[in-house]
Amino acid sequence: MAAPLLNERDLAFLLYEMLDCESLCERERYRDHNRESFDAAIATAKSVAERYFLPIRHRVDQNEPTFDGTQVHMLPEIKTAVDAAIDAGFVSATADFEVGGMQLPLSVASVASAYLTAAGSTTMGYLALTSANASLIEAYGTPEQVAKWAVPQRQGRFAGTMAMTEPGAGSGLADLITSAERAEDGSYRITGNKIFISGGDHELNDNIVHLVLARIKGAPKGTKGISLFIVPKFLVNDDGSLGPRNDVALAGLFHKMGGRGQTSTALSFGEKGGAVGYLIGEENRGLSCMFHMMNEARIMVGSSAATLATAGYQYSLNYARERVQGRLPSCKDPLSPPVAIVEHADVRRMLLAQKAYAEGAMALCLFGASLADDSATAPVEKDRAEARQLLEFLMPMIKSWPSEYGPKANDMAIQVLGGAGYINEHPVELFYRDNRLNPIHEGTTGIQSMDLLARKVPMNSMAGYEACLALMAETINDAKSVAELSDYAAKLASATGVLRETTDSLLKAMATQSIDLALANSVKYLELFGHVVIAWLWLKQGLIAQRALPNAVGDDGNFYHGKLQAMRYFFNVELPHIRVWSELLLSLDASAFDMHNDWF
Amino acid sequence: MAAPLLNERDLAFLLYEMLDCESLCERERYRDHNRESFDAAIATAKSVAERYFLPIRHRVDQNEPTFDGTQVHMLPEIKTAVDAAIDAGFVSATADFEVGGMQLPLSVASVASAYLTAAGSTTMGYLALTSANASLIEAYGTPEQVAKWAVPQRQGRFAGTMAMTEPGAGSGLADLITSAERAEDGSYRITGNKIFISGGDHELNDNIVHLVLARIKGAPKGTKGISLFIVPKFLVNDDGSLGPRNDVALAGLFHKMGGRGQTSTALSFGEKGGAVGYLIGEENRGLSCMFHMMNEARIMVGSSAATLATAGYQYSLNYARERVQGRLPSCKDPLSPPVAIVEHADVRRMLLAQKAYAEGAMALCLFGASLADDSATAPVEKDRAEARQLLEFLMPMIKSWPSEYGPKANDMAIQVLGGAGYINEHPVELFYRDNRLNPIHEGTTGIQSMDLLARKVPMNSMAGYEACLALMAETINDAKSVAELSDYAAKLASATGVLRETTDSLLKAMATQSIDLALANSVKYLELFGHVVIAWLWLKQGLIAQRALPNAVGDDGNFYHGKLQAMRYFFNVELPHIRVWSELLLSLDASAFDMHNDWF
Repeated sequence: MAAPLLNERDLAFLLYEMLDCESLCERERYRDHNRESFDAAIATAKSVAERYFLPIRHRVDQNEPTFDGTQVHMLPEIKTAVDAAIDAGFVSATADFEVGGMQLPLSVASVASAYLTAAGSTTMGYLALTSANASLIEAYGTPEQVAKWAVPQRQGRFAGTMAMTEPGAGSGLADLITSAERAEDGSYRITGNKIFISGGDHELNDNIVHLVLARIKGAPKGTKGISLFIVPKFLVNDDGSLGPRNDVALAGLFHKMGGRGQTSTALSFGEKGGAVGYLIGEENRGLSCMFHMMNEARIMVGSSAATLATAGYQYSLNYARERVQGRLPSCKDPLSPPVAIVEHADVRRMLLAQKAYAEGAMALCLFGASLADDSATAPVEKDRAEARQLLEFLMPMIKSWPSEYGPKANDMAIQVLGGAGYINEHPVELFYRDNRLNPIHEGTTGIQSMDLLARKVPMNSMAGYEACLALMAETINDAKSVAELSDYAAKLASATGVLRETTDSLLKAMATQSIDLALANSVKYLELFGHVVIAWLWLKQGLIAQRALPNAVGDDGNFYHGKLQAMRYFFNVELPHIRVWSELLLSLDASAFDMHNDWF
Repeated sequence: MAAPLLNERDLAFLLYEMLDCESLCERERYRDHNRESFDAAIATAKSVAERYFLPIRHRVDQNEPTFDGTQVHMLPEIKTAVDAAIDAGFVSATADFEVGGMQLPLSVASVASAYLTAAGSTTMGYLALTSANASLIEAYGTPEQVAKWAVPQRQGRFAGTMAMTEPGAGSGLADLITSAERAEDGSYRITGNKIFISGGDHELNDNIVHLVLARIKGAPKGTKGISLFIVPKFLVNDDGSLGPRNDVALAGLFHKMGGRGQTSTALSFGEKGGAVGYLIGEENRGLSCMFHMMNEARIMVGSSAATLATAGYQYSLNYARERVQGRLPSCKDPLSPPVAIVEHADVRRMLLAQKAYAEGAMALCLFGASLADDSATAPVEKDRAEARQLLEFLMPMIKSWPSEYGPKANDMAIQVLGGAGYINEHPVELFYRDNRLNPIHEGTTGIQSMDLLARKVPMNSMAGYEACLALMAETINDAKSVAELSDYAAKLASATGVLRETTDSLLKAMATQSIDLALANSVKYLELFGHVVIAWLWLKQGLIAQRALPNAVGDDGNFYHGKLQAMRYFFNVELPHIRVWSELLLSLDASAFDMHNDWF
C-alpha cells in the first residue's frame, strides 16, 4: 500500500477541532466560504499534488535545471505541474477574489499548500515565491504597480522572486551594496550582484518580477539606507505587453544538496549600464516592507519544514507496517515468523518521535497562520492587534522549531528504513535534503534566536511574551481538572516556571552584564522556549482528544489515543531537556564564548 | 587559504601523547618500526590523499557509476586513485610483511586511512573492503585459500566484498535464504540474491572476491545454520591465472544519498545453475567468522564517521575565519567593519561542539584500535585477553557514538557556512551525506544498543563493564589532584554514578520484568554510556594538556588550551543530558513502548 502524503485526519483535527477555522466563515472576508469550500480547496490541492507533483518528484530531484549560457532548461513536466497548480488557484489562494484569488484564510491555504509541498517541495517553491512577491506588491505598491506586476503573477503569467542576498551580504543585510540611481523618468537604474536567488531565472512563465533590495546613491549606510525595487526580467509596456529584455543577467546556477528542482541563481544587475527598477514603498524603507513579507515567508518555511517532517513520518510508518524483519527480544524461537518492524520498540520510538515533532510543528505553524488570519480579519481591532503582537512574538519559533526538528524527524525516517532509507528508491533521504535548507534561509536559527531573546521578548514591555504565557496558563488551568491530564498540566506549569526564571535571568544579564555573553547561548533559549510552546500545543491537543474520546466513533478512537500518546511522549522524553538548557543559560555558561580563535 | 584535511597536531597528540603508540615498537611485531616510520606512513597517505583523492572528490560524487547491462562504468580517475593507494601500501597497511603488508599497528594505520577517507571516503571504501576481506581469509582460510584469494587482494590485483544482506534479511540475518549445495569436488553451488553489496561489481581490479553468507541445504534454521563462502567473480586456475566467469551477475546498482562513488549492488548468484563457492572455516559457523571481521569493520565505521566529522570541522573552521559578516550584538556602530564569523558566539559554539564531537570520537576510535593492537601483540597473554575483553565491550559505542555524533557535527558545519553550506561548491553537505550511512551499516544504532545492554554489559559477569569503569576511576583519581581539573573529575565521578545506577536498574528490570520493555529505550542507554565514555576521554585529554601546558612551546600552548576548552564544553554543555536519559531509563518509560500500531 502506498503511504499517504499527509494525514488528512490530523489536518482536519488541527484546523477544525483545535483552531475552529470554520468560525472564520462568519467574518466578512470569508462569508462566501464554509467548511465544504475549505475542504474542497484542500481536496483540489491534494489531487493536483497526486496527479502532477508526486509522479515527477523523483525525476525533478535527479534532473537539476541546467544553464546553457543563454537559457535555463528543466524537465518540461515541471511547467505542467506549475501550470496545473496555478490553474487550480494555488498561486493566489489567499488573494482577493477581485484579483482572481480564492480569498482563503492562510490557515486553510497552508493545509492546501502542504499537499503540494509534500508531493514536490521544490516545484511548490516557484509558486510560493510568486505568491509572496505578489502579496508584497499588493501591500505596498501603487494601484498601477499592483495592476502591472501583481495581477499577472496572480494569473500565473509572471513569476516572482525575492532578491536580497549578495556575495558579501547574507545574514548581514546592513552591508549590501547593490546600488540604485534615480533616472529622469522617476525609475531607477540598478547595478549589483545577487546570489542564492531562488527561481531567479527559468522559462516557466512569460516574465519574472524580482523584488530587489538596493541602496540609492547617497543613502545612509547600514539598514536605514536600503530601498526596495521591482526589477522585471522583461520590461512591460503600458498595455501590459512584454517589452525588451531588462539588464538582468543570469550569471550561473548553484547546485544544492536538496531543493534541486528549483533554480538557485546568481544574478547580475546592470552589466550593460543599469537594470530598470521601480521603487516600491518609500525610499530607505525597503527592509521594513521586506520584513513584513518575510513574516509570511517565515510561516511558509516553518510549514514546509513541518510538512516534510510529516511526509517522512507517514512514509516510514507505512514502511514499518509492511516491512517484516527480526523478532522481539523476548522471542527465543528462531523458527517463529519474523514481525513487522513497527513491532520493535526502537522503531516505534522513532515513529512516535516523528509524530510528536511533525504534528507538534504543524500545530504551531497552523496556529501561527490562524493568528495571521485573526490579525487581518478579526472583527474587533483589539483582537487584531493582539493577534498581530502574538504572531510577531512567536515568529522566531514558528520559523525555527519546525526547521530544526523537521530534519531530525526526517533523519529518523531514514533510520526506520535502514539501508532502504539511504537509497533514492524511497523519498525519505530526499525529504531530509529538501528540509535541510529550512534552518538556513529566511534568517538562520542563530539569527532567529537573537531576534527572540534580544528583541521579541522585551518588546512592548514584554507584552507578546506575557500573552504567550497567558495562553499556556489558560490551557494548564483547563487541563488540571481533567484526571488523565492533571500530571501533564503540572509538568507544563513547571516548565513555564523554568522558562520564566531563565528569561528573567537573561534579561537581567543583558542589562547588567556583557550583552555578547548574555546572548551567547540564545540558540539554547530558543530551543527551550520552542519546547515549552510545543508542549503547550500538545497539551492543548491532548485536552481535545481526551474530551472527544468517550464519543469517538470508528477510527477516531485510535486517532485520539495516538494524540494522547504523542503528548505523553513529548512530555516524558523531550520536555525534560529544558532543565539542562535552563541551567546552562542561568549560569551564563561561557564554554564556547571563552574559546579563542587561536585555540581551535 | 585551503582548509587542512585533518588536524595533524591533534592526530599526533592522540597517537603519541594519549596512546603512547611509540612504545608499540618495542614489541616483536613492530620492531622494524619507529615513530619516524609511523609518521612516514601517515605522510604518504596524506600525500596520496591530496594528490589523487581530493582533486576528484567532487566529481566522484557528481558522477555515479553506471551499469550498461554488461559492465560498470565509473570515472577513470577512481582507478588511478585506488591504484595509487594500493601502490603506497594502503590495502595492506596492517598485513604481515610476508604478504607484502606494512605490518603497521591498527592505531597508526587508522590515522593513515583517515587522510584517505577525508579526501574521498567512497574511493577509500573500495580499499577498506578489500583489506577487511583479505584479513578474514588470512584469519580463517586454509593456506591455499590465503594464497589464492587473500594475497592477490593484498597485491591489489583482486578486490573484495562482504555479501550478507538479502532483500528479506538485513538486520535479521537469521532469516537469510541464499543456499549452498555441496558439489562432488568439495566446492559448493551458491544460489540466491544479495543486496546493498558495496563494491559488488566494478572494473577496478582483475577479479572480485565475494565473501557470501549462505545456508547449506539441510542446515539448521536461524543463525546456527549459516556458513561462509568465497565466491569469486572469475574462477581462478591453480596457477593463479583467471578462469571463466563465475555464475555471479550484477542485477543492478542502487543510488545512494552519499558514498556515491562506491557501487552499491544487487547481485544474483546461481542464475545459470549455481555459482561456485568455497567454504571458509567450518560449516554453520559462518556468522562467527563474519562477526570476528565485523569488529574490525566496526572500528573502521567509527573511524570513518569521526574522520568525516573532523574534515567538516576543519573546513567550517577555515571558512569561519575567512568569511566576514555582521557585527557583535554589543556593536552599535553600523559603520564599523564587519567581523570574521568566528567572532560570533553562536558560530564559535557550533565550531567547539564539532571539535568536541569529532576529536572525542576520534579519541574513542583510536583507543579502540590500540586495544585491537594490544589484543594481538601485548607481550603478556593476560594483557591481550583484557584488551580483547574491553574492546569487545566498547565495540557498540566505538561503532555508534561517532556514527551518531559525526553527522551531527557535519550538520553544524553546514550551518556554519549557511547558504554556502547547502551548495556543492563546498564539501560539507557531501560529508553529511557520506556520513549518514554510518549509523545504518554494520549494525544499526538500535542493534548496537541492544548488543550493549543485553549482551556486552552482562557478559563474563560484567567483566568488560567493570574494566571500563575501572579505567575511568583511574583517570578521575589522577585528575582530582590537579586544581584546574578537580571539578571535572568530580563531574565524571558523578556521571559514572549515574551510569551505575542506571545499569543496575536496567539489569534488574531485564531479569524481573518484561525484557522487551527493559530494552525499549536501549538507544538512550547507549547514548548515555557513550557520553560518559567520551567525557572520560576528554578528561584524559585535558589531563595531558594541563600537564603539558607549562612547558608548551610555539603553537602548542594554543593547542592545549583548545583541548581544555573542548573538554569544558563537553562537560558543561553535553554531559548534563545524561541525567535526563537516566531518569527516563530508571522509570522504564513506556511512552513509545505502549504506543499501538493502530494509534499512529
